[in-house]
Amino acid sequence: MSEIELKKQEMKEYISRMEYVQSLLGLVHWDMRVNMPPKAVNFRGEVSGYLAGELYKMTTSEKVKEFIDYFLPIDDLDDITKATVRKIKKEYDKTVKIPEKMYTDFVNLISVAESVWEEAKAKNDYGLFKPYLKQIIDYNKQFADIYGYKNKRYDALLDDYEMGMTEEELDRIFNPLKEVLINLIKKLNERGDKPKDHILKGKYPVEAQNQFAKIIAKKLGYDLESGRIDTSAHPFTIELGPSDIRITTRYDEENFISGLLSNIHEMGHAIYEQNISRDLRGTMLMTGASMGIHESQSRFYENIIGRSREFWKHVYPDISTLFPSLKKLSVDEIYQAVNSIKPSLIRVDADEITYSLHIIIRYEMEKMMIDEDVDVDELPSIWNKKYKDYLGVEPSNNSEGILQDVHWSGGSIGYFPSYALGNIYGAQILNTMLKQMPDFYERIENGDFLSIKNWLSDNIHKHGSIYTPSELIEKVSGEKLNPEYFIKRCEKIVEEKLK
Amino acid sequence: MSEIELKKQEMKEYISRMEYVQSLLGLVHWDMRVNMPPKAVNFRGEVSGYLAGELYKMTTSEKVKEFIDYFLPIDDLDDITKATVRKIKKEYDKTVKIPEKMYTDFVNLISVAESVWEEAKAKNDYGLFKPYLKQIIDYNKQFADIYGYKNKRYDALLDDYEMGMTEEELDRIFNPLKEVLINLIKKLNERGDKPKDHILKGKYPVEAQNQFAKIIAKKLGYDLESGRIDTSAHPFTIELGPSDIRITTRYDEENFISGLLSNIHEMGHAIYEQNISRDLRGTMLMTGASMGIHESQSRFYENIIGRSREFWKHVYPDISTLFPSLKKLSVDEIYQAVNSIKPSLIRVDADEITYSLHIIIRYEMEKMMIDEDVDVDELPSIWNKKYKDYLGVEPSNNSEGILQDVHWSGGSIGYFPSYALGNIYGAQILNTMLKQMPDFYERIENGDFLSIKNWLSDNIHKHGSIYTPSELIEKVSGEKLNPEYFIKRCEKIVEEKLK
Repeated sequence: MSEIELKKQEMKEYISRMEYVQSLLGLVHWDMRVNMPPKAVNFRGEVSGYLAGELYKMTTSEKVKEFIDYFLPIDDLDDITKATVRKIKKEYDKTVKIPEKMYTDFVNLISVAESVWEEAKAKNDYGLFKPYLKQIIDYNKQFADIYGYKNKRYDALLDDYEMGMTEEELDRIFNPLKEVLINLIKKLNERGDKPKDHILKGKYPVEAQNQFAKIIAKKLGYDLESGRIDTSAHPFTIELGPSDIRITTRYDEENFISGLLSNIHEMGHAIYEQNISRDLRGTMLMTGASMGIHESQSRFYENIIGRSREFWKHVYPDISTLFPSLKKLSVDEIYQAVNSIKPSLIRVDADEITYSLHIIIRYEMEKMMIDEDVDVDELPSIWNKKYKDYLGVEPSNNSEGILQDVHWSGGSIGYFPSYALGNIYGAQILNTMLKQMPDFYERIENGDFLSIKNWLSDNIHKHGSIYTPSELIEKVSGEKLNPEYFIKRCEKIVEEKLK
Repeated sequence: MSEIELKKQEMKEYISRMEYVQSLLGLVHWDMRVNMPPKAVNFRGEVSGYLAGELYKMTTSEKVKEFIDYFLPIDDLDDITKATVRKIKKEYDKTVKIPEKMYTDFVNLISVAESVWEEAKAKNDYGLFKPYLKQIIDYNKQFADIYGYKNKRYDALLDDYEMGMTEEELDRIFNPLKEVLINLIKKLNERGDKPKDHILKGKYPVEAQNQFAKIIAKKLGYDLESGRIDTSAHPFTIELGPSDIRITTRYDEENFISGLLSNIHEMGHAIYEQNISRDLRGTMLMTGASMGIHESQSRFYENIIGRSREFWKHVYPDISTLFPSLKKLSVDEIYQAVNSIKPSLIRVDADEITYSLHIIIRYEMEKMMIDEDVDVDELPSIWNKKYKDYLGVEPSNNSEGILQDVHWSGGSIGYFPSYALGNIYGAQILNTMLKQMPDFYERIENGDFLSIKNWLSDNIHKHGSIYTPSELIEKVSGEKLNPEYFIKRCEKIVEEKLK
C-alpha cells in the first residue's frame, strides 16, 4: 500500500472510533426518550456528558490536525477523501474554539433540559422550562460569537444545519413565501373553504395503528430488520449505526392521520439514512447532506406521496379493513379530509400550506433570541401574537404554544428553517423526477413505491454528505435552489380547493 | 483538603468515568437483548468492542497503578477506600495480564455469540452455536492460565464470580447436597407424589401478566421509577446506573407461574442493586458482594417469599381478580401447584428441590470444559446423560438441552455455581432473619414486604461490595457459609409433601 493509502486507512480507523461514540450518544438519547426510568435522568446526563467529552477530544485531537495538514495540500484527492477532510476540518475549526468544559456543561444541560421540557409541557408550566431555555439561548449566543460570522450572529448557528445558509438568504426566500401563504389562506377563508377533517374522527386503537405503520414501512421500503418504530413525546428518527435507523411516533386514538403522516415523515428520514452507501463508513459522510435536504426527503414522503390522491387509492383496501368505520367514506372523501387546509396551533399536525408559516414564526423568534436581547419572559406572548397575526389562531396555553416543540430543549437553535427548506428542495426534486418518471403518480397508485425509493436513493441518498446541499440540488435538478416550484405547488393546491 | 483526601477525590473521579463506560456497556447489552433490529448486530459488536477496549485501558492505566501504590501502604484507611483499592488492584492484576487485542476480540466474539445462540436455540441447531462455544471455552481456558491458579484451572474462573471460591470447596458443598437431593426425589417418586401444577394451566394474556408484575413490583418494593420490566429470550437484571436497574422476563400465555416467579427472581436482584448506598458511587463497590450473594437475594424473593403459602394468601384477591379462572381454585390448591416437585428439563422453571441438581449438572460440565479437553461435539450427549442419571428425564432436542441457557454464549463459565450458592446463602440468611423477625411469615401474609426489604437492605444491600462474600455472611449470620440450613429446608419441604 502506498503512503497515501496507508494514511487514508489510518484516518478511516480513527473516524470509525468517532462513529462508535456517535452511535453511543445516539443510543443514550434514544433510550432517554423512549425507555429510561424517570429517576435515571441525572446520572444519564453525566454519561452523555462523558461521551460528549470523548467526542470533543477526538474531534480536536492532534491526530485530526495531522490528517488535515497531510491531506489538505494534496490536489488530486478522490471526492470522498476530499469531502471527509472538508468535514473534519470544519468540525475541528469550530470545536477547537469551544473550551471542553463549556461543551460538556452544555451537553449535560440539554440532556436534563429535554426531560424538564417534557414535564413542563405535560404540566403546562413554562416557568419550569424557562431557566433552561434561557441558558440554552445564552450558550448558543456564546457559541455563535466563538464560531464567528460576517453579518448576523444567527448565521453562525444556521451554518451548523445548512452549510453556507444565512439570515439574508432565508429572508429573501421566506419573506415572499410568507406573503403568498398568508394571501392563499385569506383567499380560502374568503371563499369559505370548509375543512373536512372532522369526518375522520373516530376510534383507532393504538395497536392497529402500529400494525398499519408496519404495513406502510414495508410498502415504502423502510426496512424494519434495520430499524424499529417506538413511541415518544416528540417523533424523531435516529441513526445508531449503518443498519440501525429507528423512528418514533405518537398515536392519537381519535385520529389516525396524525400518527400515520408522522410515521411516513420519519420513514422518509429513515429511508434516507438506510440507503446511504455503506462504503462511506469511516468517512464522516454517512449522514444526510444537510438538515434541509433531510427534511426534503421526510416531507417528500409525508406530503408529496402521503397526501396524494393516488396514495389513498392504493391504501384504501388495507386501511378500511383495519379500521372498518372508514368503509362508509369514499377514497375521495378521505383524500379531501387528509388535505384539509386549516390554520391550527400544532406544527406537526399542520397541512402543507400553513406548515411553512409555523416555521417562519419559529425562524423569526430564533432571530430575536440570538440577534437581539429578548427576555425569555416575553417569548410566550410573542409566540401567541405571531400565531394570531399570521395564522389567525391563538394558543390557549403554553403547552400548545411556546412549549410545543422539543428542538430548543435539545439545544438546537437554527434547525427550524430546515423544515421549510425541505419543502422547497422537495418541490424542486419532484419537478425533476416527474420529467424522468412521468408515471410517478400511477406508480403510487399501483403501490410501486420501491422504484420511487430507488430513484431517490440513486440521486440523493447514496451520496451521504459527499456533496454540499447546494452542490447536491444542482446535481439533481440542474439548477440552484429555487423556491418557485414550491410556491407554484401551494398555489395549485389552493386553486384545486377553490374549484 | 489534606493530600490523602485530594487523592481519594481524584480516584473517585477516575472511577466515576469507569462507571460511565460500564453503564454504556450495560445499555448496549440491554438494547441488544430487548430492542435492537437484527441486522444491527455486527456494528453493535464493534461498538461493544470499542467500549470494552476503553474499559480495558482505564482498568490497566498508569493512573490506576499510581492509586494502588499510593493507598496500599497506608495502614489506617477507611473501610470503603480499603475495599476500593482491593477491588481495583484485583482488576488491575488480572486485566493487565490479558493483551488488549485478546480482550476486545473476546468481547466482539461474545456480543455476536449471544445472538447466534438465540438463533440456534430458536432453530434447535446446536451446529450453529458450536464453533462459538468452542471459541468461548478456549478463551476461558487461556484466561484461566493467564490469571493463574493453585489447584484446578477452573478455580481461576470461579474467583471472578465468588472471590476465593474453589472447585475443592464446591465439591465439598455440592457432593453431599447432590446425594441428599437425589434421595429426596427418589423418596417422592416411591411414595408417588403427584405434581399438581397442571391445575394452573389456562389462558393468561401477556398484558395482564405484565400488569400483575407491576403490582408485585410495588408490593415488594422494586421501584419502577428507577427501573423497568421488558421481555427478552432469557430473563436478566441489569444496572445501567444508580437509579436505572432494569429487569426482563418472558411470559408463557398458558402458565403465569413461570413468568411471575421469574419476575420475582429478577426483582430480588434489582431490589439489591436499588438499595446499595448511593455513597458508594465512584468507589467500584456499588455492586453486589458476589454473584452467590446476588443469587441469594433473587432466590430469597423467588422461593422463600414467592413460593410461601402466606404469599399466595396475600396475593390471592388480586390475582384471582385479574385471572378470574383462578377463582375456582383455593389458595391451598394454588400453593400446592406452585410448589409441585417434578424433575424437569428447564432450569428456570425448576422447583426448589430439583433446581440445585440443574446447577450441579452445569457445574460438572464446566469442570470438564475447563479442566479437561472435552470435545464440543460430545457436550449435548453428556448433558442428556446427566439429566437422565440425576433427574430421570432426558431432553428430546438441544433447545431444551445444551442450548437452554444464555450464560455460556455470554462468555460466562463459572457463573452457574452462584445459583446453588445463592440457595445456601439464602437459607442461612433466613435462619438469622427468623430470629430477629419471628413474625416473618405473618408479615408476608399481611403484605408487609417493605419491612423485609428494609431488613435485607440494612444487613446486605446497602453495603454493596465493601465486604467479601465470606465476610458478609459472617457479619449477617455470625457464622461461615453452612449448607446445613438449605439441606434442612429441602428435607422439610419434602417431608411436608409426604405427609
